[in-house]
Amino acid sequence: MMADTLNDSNVAIFLAQRGTEEPEFTEPKQAVEDAGASVDVLGTETGEVETVNSDLEPGGSYEIEKTFSEVSSDDYDGLVVPGGTVGADTLRLDDDAVSFIREFAEATKPMGVICHGPWTLVEADVVEGRTLTSYPSLETDIRNAGGEWVDEEVVVDEGMVTSRNPDDLPAFCEKVIEEIDEGQH
Amino acid sequence: MMADTLNDSNVAIFLAQRGTEEPEFTEPKQAVEDAGASVDVLGTETGEVETVNSDLEPGGSYEIEKTFSEVSSDDYDGLVVPGGTVGADTLRLDDDAVSFIREFAEATKPMGVICHGPWTLVEADVVEGRTLTSYPSLETDIRNAGGEWVDEEVVVDEGMVTSRNPDDLPAFCEKVIEEIDEGQH
Repeated sequence: MMADTLNDSNVAIFLAQRGTEEPEFTEPKQAVEDAGASVDVLGTETGEVETVNSDLEPGGSYEIEKTFSEVSSDDYDGLVVPGGTVGADTLRLDDDAVSFIREFAEATKPMGVICHGPWTLVEADVVEGRTLTSYPSLETDIRNAGGEWVDEEVVVDEGMVTSRNPDDLPAFCEKVIEEIDEGQH
Repeated sequence: MMADTLNDSNVAIFLAQRGTEEPEFTEPKQAVEDAGASVDVLGTETGEVETVNSDLEPGGSYEIEKTFSEVSSDDYDGLVVPGGTVGADTLRLDDDAVSFIREFAEATKPMGVICHGPWTLVEADVVEGRTLTSYPSLETDIRNAGGEWVDEEVVVDEGMVTSRNPDDLPAFCEKVIEEIDEGQH
């Protein structure tokens, strides 16, 4: 991967007020930055929040730089939604976060959504007819929302990149960069 | 409530390996015991596990007395499924736990399911045509599973008692005892 692949790209990464899975936030963020992208950390309220490891252990502290309500999805070329059971469950309750995702999906702009993150896709009602993966507990919710659920390390469907858990991060990050580099589908 | 209302009742309460919401486990357990019921704590593996408070703070330590795989739902007159985001997400991945719930629902035997607990009802595919409540983040998953979701302190539908969060516990516990006292519908 060239270091300047994403030089002209603005990427949004979501960070929940609590419960975001540490490596699913830090690793994709680092990967797209290393590829040259400019990254904004978006959340419900600006300020420092804490992540978790394995859902229940303390993670690190990171800054939410802009709120969902103050940005437009039009200003971004790529989107990353991390998991964490509590984190994804929290994000899906924010209407502005869900609208952002819906706009991205409807425009078939590149996004990476991992682990429990796909609950936000269910909430945005953009799963119908799409093939995706997730943490296994979401399989039924995704099928009930009209999606085709598969158990694979990484799945790409029209710019929508999904993976199952932190072990899938290397494959996930690679595909996310590839799709952002390709641009809107 | 008479102290001996549930004297002849055996009640099962589920406890996840991790992430069960402390008061949603302890309070219904105490309430049905105070009403005279005999209670078994069921889980995936026997032994001590820890609960959480507000999903991410440490709770207490409690013993799982019997495993889902070693019991039969026929031996119980009532069932309680606590929430906790991680706890309910963990329980829905245990096929024996899900079968237990399905058998209870199909027999219209009394059960109380609170907060994120109703994900287990979605997993058991017993939500279709039923009216229920839950933590608000589950609304879409419940509607997609064919349920009618309402925002009320406590909902009773053919013996299925549901509530939204720990604040609803007094109303929840009262209805759970009433329904177990009434018996199978």
